[in-house]
Amino acid sequence: MKIGLLGFGTVGEGVYELTKQQENMTVARVLCRKDRSLPDAAVTHDFADILQDETIDTVVEVIGGLHPAYEYVTDAIRAGKNIVTANKALMAVYYDELLALAAQHGVSIRCTAAVGGGIGWLSALERARRVDTLREIHGIMNGTCNYILDSMTRLGLDYAEALRRAQELGYAEAEPSTDVDGIDTWHKLILSANIAFGVSLEKADVPVAGIRNITYDDIGWFNRHGYVCKLVGTARRDGEAHVQPTLYALSELEGNIPANFNLISLDGEVAGRQSFYGQGAGRYPTALNVVQDCADLLEGKGFYCPCGGKTAVPNRSRMVWYVRAPRGPLPEGPVSEQWGEGKILEASVAEMHRWLKDHPDAFIAAIPDRVK
Amino acid sequence: MKIGLLGFGTVGEGVYELTKQQENMTVARVLCRKDRSLPDAAVTHDFADILQDETIDTVVEVIGGLHPAYEYVTDAIRAGKNIVTANKALMAVYYDELLALAAQHGVSIRCTAAVGGGIGWLSALERARRVDTLREIHGIMNGTCNYILDSMTRLGLDYAEALRRAQELGYAEAEPSTDVDGIDTWHKLILSANIAFGVSLEKADVPVAGIRNITYDDIGWFNRHGYVCKLVGTARRDGEAHVQPTLYALSELEGNIPANFNLISLDGEVAGRQSFYGQGAGRYPTALNVVQDCADLLEGKGFYCPCGGKTAVPNRSRMVWYVRAPRGPLPEGPVSEQWGEGKILEASVAEMHRWLKDHPDAFIAAIPDRVK
Repeated sequence: MKIGLLGFGTVGEGVYELTKQQENMTVARVLCRKDRSLPDAAVTHDFADILQDETIDTVVEVIGGLHPAYEYVTDAIRAGKNIVTANKALMAVYYDELLALAAQHGVSIRCTAAVGGGIGWLSALERARRVDTLREIHGIMNGTCNYILDSMTRLGLDYAEALRRAQELGYAEAEPSTDVDGIDTWHKLILSANIAFGVSLEKADVPVAGIRNITYDDIGWFNRHGYVCKLVGTARRDGEAHVQPTLYALSELEGNIPANFNLISLDGEVAGRQSFYGQGAGRYPTALNVVQDCADLLEGKGFYCPCGGKTAVPNRSRMVWYVRAPRGPLPEGPVSEQWGEGKILEASVAEMHRWLKDHPDAFIAAIPDRVK
Repeated sequence: MKIGLLGFGTVGEGVYELTKQQENMTVARVLCRKDRSLPDAAVTHDFADILQDETIDTVVEVIGGLHPAYEYVTDAIRAGKNIVTANKALMAVYYDELLALAAQHGVSIRCTAAVGGGIGWLSALERARRVDTLREIHGIMNGTCNYILDSMTRLGLDYAEALRRAQELGYAEAEPSTDVDGIDTWHKLILSANIAFGVSLEKADVPVAGIRNITYDDIGWFNRHGYVCKLVGTARRDGEAHVQPTLYALSELEGNIPANFNLISLDGEVAGRQSFYGQGAGRYPTALNVVQDCADLLEGKGFYCPCGGKTAVPNRSRMVWYVRAPRGPLPEGPVSEQWGEGKILEASVAEMHRWLKDHPDAFIAAIPDRVK
């Protein structure tokens, strides 16, 4: 396998190093903005050098972001090259288009590193769905949010201090909204659901609530009631998909996921629940799954599953919520308890997120074990 | 794929049902002691009917136990048939012999269902070791022991009552020693270590301590110190392998594994820690992984890794232990604390298990987070 590597940042360098230890993978050319020289690969600023190199059969894209990644990947597909990417935004947003284009040109796309870093979650889904029907997937998919929430819970930090520490450690960006507003989890959830259920979710139907407005007091009230808060993406075959802060009892696995780790679960009709735990990001875990995808391509594994049609997500199920709104009124529904400034009430997922759109300074969290 | 199915008990029936939903797998003949008739498979009492059927390319062995499973499997290998088995005892005890025989006859052996029931743990090891070097594996591999220990911890039962409930639920046999004395975990650990590290462990070197002697009071003392007790198998590339009760803090994943579930972890040089959680046994989870192995054979995947030579396991590392011995004297080593009738002391793994052999009514548990 001769690889054209797009991007030589944290993950790109990791891929370059790890492929050196693999007998049948060679990084032949690297697209990199900086001037660099590498002992055994040609570095270029111009993507055309990779596109036109007919000896390159596989393009590994680890630039991230939608553009120019989209243009590079589609051009590479049209040139008959296989794609391995760690880019969850690209794969979530252009899922059906990229799959159709790849099928048309007879090439493969894999993106295991896009979700769960080192865990190999999408490959686990591929294996599970081969012989089972999946009913649900859910999990903690963003290490930055888990680090922030875990630090608030275990160390008693407020949100600003927890975020600052995450930034110091390099877990969070200077502009953290992709993580804390749930966008990263949203991309990962959509991509996972598409593969788990063989569909193409209507993105506008999948609502997202992030953790930006969570306070020290919220965490205190959760703690008093035996809960910890996690940012969780959930999708169900029967028409649910959402990203939202979610309260778990300490006796549940989710309640004990530390630092920047991920825990992602599937529920299969035959397999029952299975969960996968590991480092959700970082140079080597992510690069490792890029290399795993290359190894899968060498074994003849293309994409995880065929792409079904666009699928609507009604999100009709009713849940119990913690809702704190600096400015009222609350969403309609019976209020059963008062936790400090927060209220416990019942509403459907769709209703709750519709209300939240008009109340951007509110904080909500679902409490799944309170659903009757 | 035409399958000869050996055994039609809990798992066998599950395999028969699940293969019906797979396009390219057919159970052609079933070896079964009872008189039964099946609409689409010939039932026989005589293994020769399967052995001599040249249309059968794959033998699925779910009888369990060493004999006659060993004779059937070796005969089938010599007849050029691939093997899928859920039999951990067979695979742990005859590991190097069966692998050599299969290689000699150009057939494949897979045994994913032998460890971790539905989890697919051995396949996860196969995938991980493809591009990474594994340093350690460890985990809760026996659902029966986890059920007993969890019931004692959460419900305050004594050992006899917890065992009785496990027997009522069908988790434990009437004669429970394979589970509670750690033999089942021992088989699973040896097989996992062989695959993880590409070795063949010297079985006599791998010591086992079970949970038969644990008491209500032991659990109470663990609880007072913030620990829960689990039966854990651990193996390290650098010469450790043992099965023993192990104390975990409640904030660790292992401390929160409920009922009859399993949690098995690997530690890779590149991947870091990854953990896999799911139902450790049961008809469908186990049958599902038999079917997964059949699917892997169809995709050309034979055994997980080559078998290295016999490897000694010195078990030299020093640990901190809880030791309670109705009749002394204790193993040599400094005693730092007294927990009821139990003492906290330091000793190497090899020393501790050597002592335990002469004190079959004692109970020991390792406390990994107290190791300096």
